[in-house]
Formats: sequence, structure tokens, C-alpha cells
Amino acid sequence: MRHLLDTTDLSLKEIDDMIELANDIIANKKKYAHICDGKKLATLFFEPSTRTRLSFEAAMYELGGNVLGFSEAASSSAAKGETVEDTIRIVSNYADIIAMRHPLEGAPRVAVTKTLVPIINAGDGGHLHPTQTLTDLVTLYNEIGRLDHLKIGLCGDLKYGRTVHSLIKTMSHFEGNEFILISTKDLRVPGYIKSILKASGCKYTELNSLSEAMPLLDVLYMTRIQRERFNSEEEYKKQSGVFVLDTRKLSLGKKTLKILHPLPRVDEITTEVDNDPRAVYFKQAVYGMYARMALIYLMINEPVQQKAKKPAVENRIHKCSNPNCITNKELYLPNSFVNSGDMLTCLYCDNRMLI
Amino acid sequence: MRHLLDTTDLSLKEIDDMIELANDIIANKKKYAHICDGKKLATLFFEPSTRTRLSFEAAMYELGGNVLGFSEAASSSAAKGETVEDTIRIVSNYADIIAMRHPLEGAPRVAVTKTLVPIINAGDGGHLHPTQTLTDLVTLYNEIGRLDHLKIGLCGDLKYGRTVHSLIKTMSHFEGNEFILISTKDLRVPGYIKSILKASGCKYTELNSLSEAMPLLDVLYMTRIQRERFNSEEEYKKQSGVFVLDTRKLSLGKKTLKILHPLPRVDEITTEVDNDPRAVYFKQAVYGMYARMALIYLMINEPVQQKAKKPAVENRIHKCSNPNCITNKELYLPNSFVNSGDMLTCLYCDNRMLI
Amino acid sequence: MRHLLDTTDLSLKEIDDMIELANDIIANKKKYAHICDGKKLATLFFEPSTRTRLSFEAAMYELGGNVLGFSEAASSSAAKGETVEDTIRIVSNYADIIAMRHPLEGAPRVAVTKTLVPIINAGDGGHLHPTQTLTDLVTLYNEIGRLDHLKIGLCGDLKYGRTVHSLIKTMSHFEGNEFILISTKDLRVPGYIKSILKASGCKYTELNSLSEAMPLLDVLYMTRIQRERFNSEEEYKKQSGVFVLDTRKLSLGKKTLKILHPLPRVDEITTEVDNDPRAVYFKQAVYGMYARMALIYLMINEPVQQKAKKPAVENRIHKCSNPNCITNKELYLPNSFVNSGDMLTCLYCDNRMLI
Repeated sequence: MRHLLDTTDLSLKEIDDMIELANDIIANKKKYAHICDGKKLATLFFEPSTRTRLSFEAAMYELGGNVLGFSEAASSSAAKGETVEDTIRIVSNYADIIAMRHPLEGAPRVAVTKTLVPIINAGDGGHLHPTQTLTDLVTLYNEIGRLDHLKIGLCGDLKYGRTVHSLIKTMSHFEGNEFILISTKDLRVPGYIKSILKASGCKYTELNSLSEAMPLLDVLYMTRIQRERFNSEEEYKKQSGVFVLDTRKLSLGKKTLKILHPLPRVDEITTEVDNDPRAVYFKQAVYGMYARMALIYLMINEPVQQKAKKPAVENRIHKCSNPNCITNKELYLPNSFVNSGDMLTCLYCDNRMLI
Repeated sequence: MRHLLDTTDLSLKEIDDMIELANDIIANKKKYAHICDGKKLATLFFEPSTRTRLSFEAAMYELGGNVLGFSEAASSSAAKGETVEDTIRIVSNYADIIAMRHPLEGAPRVAVTKTLVPIINAGDGGHLHPTQTLTDLVTLYNEIGRLDHLKIGLCGDLKYGRTVHSLIKTMSHFEGNEFILISTKDLRVPGYIKSILKASGCKYTELNSLSEAMPLLDVLYMTRIQRERFNSEEEYKKQSGVFVLDTRKLSLGKKTLKILHPLPRVDEITTEVDNDPRAVYFKQAVYGMYARMALIYLMINEPVQQKAKKPAVENRIHKCSNPNCITNKELYLPNSFVNSGDMLTCLYCDNRMLI
Repeated sequence: MRHLLDTTDLSLKEIDDMIELANDIIANKKKYAHICDGKKLATLFFEPSTRTRLSFEAAMYELGGNVLGFSEAASSSAAKGETVEDTIRIVSNYADIIAMRHPLEGAPRVAVTKTLVPIINAGDGGHLHPTQTLTDLVTLYNEIGRLDHLKIGLCGDLKYGRTVHSLIKTMSHFEGNEFILISTKDLRVPGYIKSILKASGCKYTELNSLSEAMPLLDVLYMTRIQRERFNSEEEYKKQSGVFVLDTRKLSLGKKTLKILHPLPRVDEITTEVDNDPRAVYFKQAVYGMYARMALIYLMINEPVQQKAKKPAVENRIHKCSNPNCITNKELYLPNSFVNSGDMLTCLYCDNRMLI
């Protein structure tokens, strides 16, 4: 059985296949209309999200299947103190595939230990959101025609934005990509992302100005400043609105530029920009449904061998230092880390700690 | 593409066709059982409503289609600050038709500017609720046999009751209808409804007493005093319970009287009345499902040209004075009014202002 | 038309038939895959429950049908003050069968007075939960091979646990069963359950120690201490955790022991126990889906005559003394009791009062 917790669960070959399948579905929708007849998708959203949940549900209906689930934790047994392990173990009896979103980081990693069916991570806290990345890849491939040799600008909340981290990690595997990281000092990408960029040999630049970056870019990936990731309203207000894309800044961009956004947006892109043909963020949401159709189809109908596990895993007396890690809320979980030199990386949330 | 924001979007001929179609569905249910196979209805309920949402969902399932959506704003991206425009633009990629309920008046008018699929207004604040009116019309036609030359009593909250306003507007187009408006002084119909009645040449009377009205009526349309439309609990208590229909008052009515109610009721009709054959409010809910089946069928399968837009629309420095108008919450929206003499009518919520 | 409010609505013969049907469905799933095509299940959950709701929905989809409903009262018209009677009367027009969960005891008894379709009680407060009992019976029959001559231990919250009460009542009808009731003094089974046991001639013992009971048992039925049934956090903490099943206690059990739990669990069974083959509580959840498929199938497709009503019902000046009885919240309901000697039993919630 195969799960999708992170895009790193997929090889470049598999990503190519997925994109190709998504495009075949777009071209031959009818061919796939009964592929999942009699199958059930469970959408377990411990945290609300219209877009992601509805695109999963639409995808499953397009394939002929059915959907059950919940759209917030208050409607679930979690409200009665049930663990993620138990909820997943039960629901995996009622569905053929599960898409889960959870506020705690690493929750899907817990889910795969107990599930009887494939798990798709539909977002775990500030950690990972791989189906958004698949969506981004299908969009880039269709709108630009390639995934390599691109100058990719990422703007906004680069510190907490999981879609940004996931996209950078994946695009760093394709040849010749260069990253322009546009944010305030407080919202820079975390160190581990820079390490990945360095390791892959990708060039990257950090800038404070969207206007300065604009002329350079083939792709501009805008993100929302997420209110819920800040400790105080004051801190939020200080950061938001600083990097707004409007028609004036857009006029500095190339004709071939493509603007993506995982959505929802608040005010980081003005609505005038929507009408510019370079704005593809609404088309992106459409590609998202097809990406998810491809994913569900592959995971339900073509189960393949699970990739080799992460290397050595050690149980230690250490606790993960990330307060949003699932291991700090569900205390029955073992503390598991990958050990590399003097660094421990949490198996669940990828948080790195010096020993 | 065609939308249903208000019953005024439909001509009398179209209303007749819709009623006829609803009755054909009632008579030949099987014929329509696969009409929407593979189609998806999105029910976007930014405000909860069992009856309306479930009747839409039942209608879609009866036609062979599927349903996705949310039943309250907390489960949607609106909780993250997304605009109605963006939510609709996205979801319209995932569904073939959208039924939306929103607490702000004019929200569906915003939706139609961005949607890719037909929009049905399933209620916007105290403003409009056209599928309730279609339900009422199908009920009246089937239970009485005609829509004209009726003495129609409307009782309860005539000031805030959107179903009342919508029914009066529509029934005023049919010949020979007369209206008896039964309410306390504080809950009289608004001035613009009286203007419509005058313009259409319909007779109307305002009464303070349900008992006095009873012997006159062919139809009694009861409504709930909506707690949520009052500023204080005290104000609510003062008004509610004043115009309760019980078996004693009912005994004053004609044998052929028909009693309707949009439901839910609280205590404005006592449960003893339920057993009287003149009480048709539960049958009304059944007609509602068929009315919605007819509507979904027509909007999905027989797209017709959008009717001519409202006449001249002007953007002005004026703000709409209705605090519940969507333009006062989603500030990117232009202020748009229809100008007639010294009066501006808000394009979104129909609020009228003197210049 | 037939309803399921309590397992006592079923004869032993009918229970046998239901178990047989569930096993036939397990063995021949395909045969039943389109049995409910075009039918609709309404899941009306006035109180949240993942497991029960999702197992009903999965069951209906497995039978080819569709599902509509709500997962908490806030999304329903109940929030506007609608009575259970009216909600059911309406929704029963939109569905072919209704599964309802309600926080007030006796609410499903109210539902059956107005519904047009079969009602399944999916749990009413601390009162009854018959589909859990059916689940338990299918589990016991399949895992042990018989429903009689068993030594059945029940542990945890025996006072408020509706699944415990329902299981005891049903199993007391099968020959030779013996009950070991394991709880603190404060959480003993109520008197009326003991009366039932005495009347049926079943042996029972009350114990304070799980370890002491272990060697005796063929079945151990563990239950959660339900936080929401306690008046204060303090009272909850005093009781919970006292009767935890861990591998040490498990080692005292027979090889043939079967451990059931209605789930969700909090910490009354440690996760190490999950791996023991005697732990069947996760399989139990699977049986639950098949039990519900059998039930839906029978209730929709083979309507039988309603069993004779409870004997004489009297309306009295007395009010039911149970504060959670539906008659104490929905005041239009008549006070109805079964009179036996100097005792009144509430028709809705089965609460017993001395006159």
C-alpha cells in the first residue's frame, strides 16, 4: 500500500507520470467517469478548508466514487478525546482511501501506522501539504511547458508557508531552477530549506522588495500571510500587507510570467490583477482537482510497493521541541528521530534539534 | 448562463413552465431519476438551514447527481478571510450548479459576477429567498388550482420576513389577487413593498387582528418571528406570540382555506392545527423538493440567455446605507445603484436611499 | 412501517435473522451493492459522533444509496428553535430512512410519532443505542460462535453507559449468560437493570476489581468513562483511569477471551493490548458497518408490521423527573407513562418514578 505524506514520497519519474495522467484525465474525462464506482473517499478534516476539501470531493465524484467524512474536529470523535491512531484505524474500515487535514504536524505520519487504506496528507499544520505541490506542478507544466530552468519567485510568508517549503523542495530536484525568496526579515525561509537548496546546487537570492524581483521572474508564487500562524494580532498586522501585488508592480513583470497562489488570498493580490492573463491562480484551482483525480486513481487502482523507509530511526529520551508536533499532544507516541551527526530530525514533523 | 437571484428573474410564463415541470416530475419521478447523472450541486451555506439545504440535496440526489459543500461558514475558507467572489470563483470549478445561502444581503449578486456555473440564491440575509417563493407557488397551484383571484393573508413578521416580501412581489403579478397584511404596527411590510402593490393595482389591507382576518381568506401565510432579526431579547419577546394560530382562530376560516408556512415554526401555529386538512405547510415542504428539482433541471440542462440587465447602473460616491449589505463588509465591491429620480436603489441588496 | 428505538423492538428470532443477514452481506458483498440504488439515508446528528455516523454512511453507500443530513445541532434548524417533531416530519419527506442521534433521552420516541419513513435510534443521551448492541451481537456471534452460556464482564461506566445497559438487556434473553459487573461503587448499573437481570433469571456479580474478574470471563466489554456525563471535571477525574486494561491484567484472562469496546476509548485500554488477538474492538467497528447494512436493508426493503405498542399509556399530571428527558425540553409533549403498581415509567426515556 502506498501513502502520500510528502512530495518526497514520489520520485521524479512518478511526478512526471502523475502530471501525464492528470493531463490525460483533462483530455478524456469520460474515460475516467466510472473508475471509482462503488469506492469511498473519507475526507477527515480536523481543521476546516473549503478549497482543499471540496476539490478532493469533486475529484472523487468525477471518478464515480462517494465521499464521507467531517469538516471540522468539533463534529468528530476527537472532541471526545480519541487519538488520531484510533480514529484512522476505524475510518479506514469504512473507506477505500483517506484524505486528512490536521492542525498538528506529523499527524498523517501517525495515521499510516494504523490505517488499512492509503492515506493522503491534505495538510498538517505548518508542516506539509503535498497535494498543493502536485497542483502547483501540474499548473506550471501546463502553463509554462516545463518544470526546469525556471526563475521562481516566492513571496510573502516564507517562514510558516508549508506550500512554499514543499514547492521549493520539489522544484530543487529539477535542473537549472533558481529561487528568488521575497519576504520581510522575520518571514524568511527556515534554515533547513536553505540547506536543501544548497545541497541540490540551486541558486537562490533573498530579497526585501517585490518590485525589485519582478523583472527577473518566470514564475511568481504569492502566499497569504496566515493570521492563524501568528502569536498576536499586533504581530500579524506588522507583517501583512507589506508585499502586495498590484497592477503597478505587475507592469514590471515579463510578458511570459505566470502568477500562482495556493489561495485563499486576503489582500496580497489586488483584484485588478485577476484579469491579467499572467494570473493563473484560479486555473490552478482547476488543475488541483485534476491532480487529485490522478492521485486518487493511482493510489486506489495501482497500489505499488511502499518506498524504502527513512534510514535508521532511533527512540531516544529526547522530546521533539516543536510544540505543534503531534508527539507533544498525543503522548502515547514514541519519540522517533533520524540521527545525522549531532542533529536529530523528528520522524513525524521533520523538526530538527541539536543534541 | 442563467441564475436565480430573485423571482423577478423569471417571467410569468417561466414560472408557469416551472410549476408544470414540477408537476410532471411528481407524476413521472422515474423519468427524471438519471437526468443529472455525473453532475454536482454545491450547497454553500454560510449560514445554517436544515430544511432548505436538505431539500436541495434531496432534489439533486433524486435527479441522479451528487452534492458537495458546507453547512456553516466556520467550515469554509470564509473563516480565513476569503471574499465571496473568490470562494465562488473556485467552487464554480468544482460543481455544475451552486445553491448559496449567505447572512449578508446581496452576496449572491456578487457571486454571479465571478461564477462559471449557474447560481441559485438560497437566501441572503433578510433580503430574498426565491426558491421558497417557487415552493409557495407550486403549493398554491396544486392545493388551490390557481394563482389568481385569491385573498391572501400574510401574518407575523412582515417587516423582516423575506419569504413574505418575495411572495407578495410575485403574486402581485397575477390578476385579481388581494392582500391582507396582519401584523403588529412594528412589523408592518416595508414601504417599497407597498409601492409595488400600488403599482400593480392590487388591493391590500393592514390589520392588527388575525381573528378579524380569518373569515376573509383563501390563503393564510404564517411566518415565524425570527429571533435573530431583533436587536434585543426584550424586543423579540414583546412581538412574538402575539399572532398565534390556534384551533379557535382556525374555526373562523373558510372550509377551502389553505394555511402555508415557510417553516421552521416556533409557536406561531399550535400543533393541534397540524391535523386540520387546511394545514398544508408540511406538504409545502414536499412541494419544495420538487420545485427545486425542476429548477436544477432547467438551470443545468436548458441554459437560456440571461435576461437583460437592470437598466442603468451608476457608480457613485454614496455607500449603501444598509449595514447588512454585502458592500459594507466586502469593501472591494463597487458601490452600484440604479438611479430613479431622487432615489438610489442598491444593485446588491435593493436598499433604497434618498439622494 | 418499522422503527428501531431499542433492541427490545426486535424479537430473538429477528435478532438471529439480522445476524444471519449481516453475515450473508459479509460473504456476498456484491449481491447487495445496488440494493438501495436511488434511496436516501438521512443522518440527523444533533450531537456529534464520527464513528456511528460514518459507519451508517459507509453502510448506505455500500448498498448503493445516498446520504444527506447534518453532523451537529448548530448546522440544523434546531438552532432556530424548531421542535424534533417538526424537523423529523420535514426530513422524512426527503429521505427513505432516518438515523438520528440526539442529546435528549426519548427524542427518537418523539420522532416516530411524526415520521413518514423508518427511524433508527443512533443514540439518545444516556438512554439507548441499539445499533451499537446489534454491532456487539454480530461481533460476539462471529468471534465466539454463540450468544448463550457466556460469562460476560462489563467494566467502566456502568451507570451512564447506554451501550452497557442495552447489551445487558439483550443478552439476558439468551440462555445461560452470566454477568460480572466491574466498576467503582459510584458507577454501578442502575436498579432497573438489576431488576431485568433478576426477572430473566441471569446470575450477576458486582466486583470492584478488574484483575479479580479477568480469569472468569469469556467476554470483557470495556467502556469509556464519558467526561460529558459528569457534572464537574473533578468528579470525572476521580473516576477515570481506575479500571484500565493493560497487558498485565490481560495476562490473567483466558486464551479464548474476547475484548470488546464500543469506542472511542480514551485510556481505559492501553495501546499494547491492541496487538493481542483477543482484542476485537477494531473488528467490532467493521462488524458495525455490516450490522447497519443489514438493518437498513431490512427496514427499507422489508417493511413489516409494527409490534404491538407498549401496554396502557396514561397521561398524568406528573412530569418526568429526568432532567435530560425530551419532555422536559420540548414542552408541547404529553406526559406519558406506563403504570405498574406504584411505579410510573416514562414512555420516552424509560425513567422510573414512584407515585
